[in-house]
Amino acid sequence: MLSHRLADFIGQIQYDMLPAATVHMARMAFLDWLGSAAAGGLQAPAKKIQAVVKQQGGSPQATLLATGEKISCLNAALANGIASHIMELDDVHRAAIIHAGAAVIPAALAVAEMIRASGRQLLEAIVVGYEVAIRVGEAVTPSHYYFWHTTGTCGTFGAAAAAGKLLGLNKEQLVWALGNAGTQAAGLWEFLVDGAMSKHLHPGKAAQNGVLAALLAREGFTGAMRILEGERGFCRATAPRFDLSKITANLGKQPYKVEENSFKIHASCRHTHPAVDVTLELVARHGLKPADVATIIVRTYRTALDITANHQPATVYAAKFSLPFCVALALQTGRCGLEDFTPEKLSDPVIHDLMSRVSLVMDEELDALHPARWPAIVEIETHSGQVYQGRTDFPRGDPENPVTAEELVTKFHALAAGPWGEQRSRVLAQAVLDLENVVDVADLFQVLSPNHYGRVWHSSCGITQHER
Amino acid sequence: MLSHRLADFIGQIQYDMLPAATVHMARMAFLDWLGSAAAGGLQAPAKKIQAVVKQQGGSPQATLLATGEKISCLNAALANGIASHIMELDDVHRAAIIHAGAAVIPAALAVAEMIRASGRQLLEAIVVGYEVAIRVGEAVTPSHYYFWHTTGTCGTFGAAAAAGKLLGLNKEQLVWALGNAGTQAAGLWEFLVDGAMSKHLHPGKAAQNGVLAALLAREGFTGAMRILEGERGFCRATAPRFDLSKITANLGKQPYKVEENSFKIHASCRHTHPAVDVTLELVARHGLKPADVATIIVRTYRTALDITANHQPATVYAAKFSLPFCVALALQTGRCGLEDFTPEKLSDPVIHDLMSRVSLVMDEELDALHPARWPAIVEIETHSGQVYQGRTDFPRGDPENPVTAEELVTKFHALAAGPWGEQRSRVLAQAVLDLENVVDVADLFQVLSPNHYGRVWHSSCGITQHER
Repeated sequence: MLSHRLADFIGQIQYDMLPAATVHMARMAFLDWLGSAAAGGLQAPAKKIQAVVKQQGGSPQATLLATGEKISCLNAALANGIASHIMELDDVHRAAIIHAGAAVIPAALAVAEMIRASGRQLLEAIVVGYEVAIRVGEAVTPSHYYFWHTTGTCGTFGAAAAAGKLLGLNKEQLVWALGNAGTQAAGLWEFLVDGAMSKHLHPGKAAQNGVLAALLAREGFTGAMRILEGERGFCRATAPRFDLSKITANLGKQPYKVEENSFKIHASCRHTHPAVDVTLELVARHGLKPADVATIIVRTYRTALDITANHQPATVYAAKFSLPFCVALALQTGRCGLEDFTPEKLSDPVIHDLMSRVSLVMDEELDALHPARWPAIVEIETHSGQVYQGRTDFPRGDPENPVTAEELVTKFHALAAGPWGEQRSRVLAQAVLDLENVVDVADLFQVLSPNHYGRVWHSSCGITQHER
Repeated sequence: MLSHRLADFIGQIQYDMLPAATVHMARMAFLDWLGSAAAGGLQAPAKKIQAVVKQQGGSPQATLLATGEKISCLNAALANGIASHIMELDDVHRAAIIHAGAAVIPAALAVAEMIRASGRQLLEAIVVGYEVAIRVGEAVTPSHYYFWHTTGTCGTFGAAAAAGKLLGLNKEQLVWALGNAGTQAAGLWEFLVDGAMSKHLHPGKAAQNGVLAALLAREGFTGAMRILEGERGFCRATAPRFDLSKITANLGKQPYKVEENSFKIHASCRHTHPAVDVTLELVARHGLKPADVATIIVRTYRTALDITANHQPATVYAAKFSLPFCVALALQTGRCGLEDFTPEKLSDPVIHDLMSRVSLVMDEELDALHPARWPAIVEIETHSGQVYQGRTDFPRGDPENPVTAEELVTKFHALAAGPWGEQRSRVLAQAVLDLENVVDVADLFQVLSPNHYGRVWHSSCGITQHER
């Protein structure tokens, strides 16, 4: 019985048994998610759900990250989950095609705050949540993915696992929670035709539904025992082909799935990242200046060109999906971050000149490697006739080509400093980097409270930590 | 575009254009639902969700029917929806195989209370909610029904329609609400293997998710425009075969779908109802007494016998699924109501003697008529050699064989008088029978408020009504 196996795993995971690499990745996943939630909280879809949950009211159990107010645990999971999936900068698991963080972490954080859990408990919850969401995703991908937005559907199992872990559910209760997660799991791709906001709703609902399943299980509300493999269960209902063995293969053994996570450090479409990475490296190594550049040839796989071969992006949003723009931006500024996608850059004559020098080539050899690898070769020829070339097979942030903690912290500040201010962002980043020593997660997020700012900066930061 | 067609219909329906028969059925559906919610509110699954929503807290927007407390609109829709589907006495639409009331009415009531709608507005919302839920159900039944619990899935569309109508959404917002209803729709039959409480969770979630979709749409949160017919929409994702024409055929024309509703007046499995109906009629017409009866032959369709051919029910719950028990009970007491299923009756020697005289026969001719009809022939022979025979093709409560308002009121009191007391139940029944003249639905439900009882009975009832 798969739910029993997962429940055993969820019950057994303890902070003390986690390798340093797992703890590091869980911490980074949390920081990365938090940045996306901070910036997303200012966007229109997030504002709309904030209005709805404020009307509903609730006990002050968890933080609405966009405002620092305390709202009910279920509402916080929903609103923070929606916010975290708007910027398109959240982490992704390649094989499961799931943004586990957007569903798992808002659930884990809301419950952790409610029960005043420690940073270690939150880390445990993130590890088990990612494990369950990703494993269910791997079992049903790719056939499930045609109709169903995996982040919403499989994410619900991960959210329930994380919430159930924090609530200390016993094995039977965890099985019920997974059963009622699966029977609430939803999220259809149909929104894509209209670019509708449902995309953001999905992980928020996954988080909220997962928490509800766990809270109900704690009260003894029963659920299906074989929700994954049952004759009328989740996999058969939503995936023409599935592989249940992926749910339990090496379950409980290292490395944990959270370590397979990919982070996005550039603010553009993932398919632009390999070429941007190589361009940035060539610029840094050879000190290239825009005025030096005669031609730029980018060779890459077909899907990248299908989506990003746009030499004339009309909007800032379209620029994020324009490979020529992103490469030109990287050449001119040495960056490709959130703050670099501006109307000014979109109309910058230097960028336009560079874009016109970019040629895109579909490379059969590279294409054969996709999607296991996402390769690109960039060749830059200068006016003086020098040719610089580089290649990558994995965009930076993939587990095969990891980013540093410093890069993720930089990304976090780029996302969070605007909405939260630099000082609060620094406090939070510092605490998250040391999450295993945070005694009380709820206390940590007091820093976002509307009337807390003064107190923090006139006392000595306000976050209780273990002595080190 | 189907959502646009449905949105037009939802927007156009006005109380003044509804025929008396439609208003009557909507009122009866509300009364019937209310009784199920009252009795269900005392059951274990309802108590568990009550515990969860009380922890979450919220603005006092709508009544938690089990306690009379005011809780948030979204929580009320959830908790009341769960309660209303526990007694297995709620109404059903045969062709769509959906308990529309359990999903639509808790959504409609919660929003109506929140906005202080009138009885007429509530009736409009019930009519459009039933129409949408049943039409979507008809479009995907039966292939959808293998994996998906229609009450949970299609019910979400009906809940969104009812909530959207009450909130006065414009056409574009209604389309978004339907889009985000469909993308949240869920509920798998897998719980059946374990008899898990998920069954009750489904209509509660349908109600809550439908209300959320409507509340979000009011704020401008967009959803898929073609959620029903789209290439990656609800029908293709959840039904191997479907018929979209059923969603719009004669849409807006009378009779409305709420009039096709079937009510249950006996407290047993629906498959026992035809034989119970005939037995009650023979008892009433011929004054039969248990001591007179020598043999009872029941001829019916195969499915009825597959499920109810149990001569030795071991529990009161099993007795509700025992055709011999239900027929014996009808013979002895002239009733088959909620209060008749007791441990005393289960061990009553007269009932046991009568059960031993019941023979069950699968009748090929009757079976050929099922499921369009649910027929039974009952033949009772007395010790003096007289034979009395009767037949029905539709259990009472089907639209072809309607029950009276008095019978539904009797059923309501049987369900509600225990949990709410006789006086409150009478006040509510009286008001619902005159729902079109209730000025403020929220005011009506003040009668359930924990500290309201005294006030009602020392003043003159407290419910504001139109002058008549």
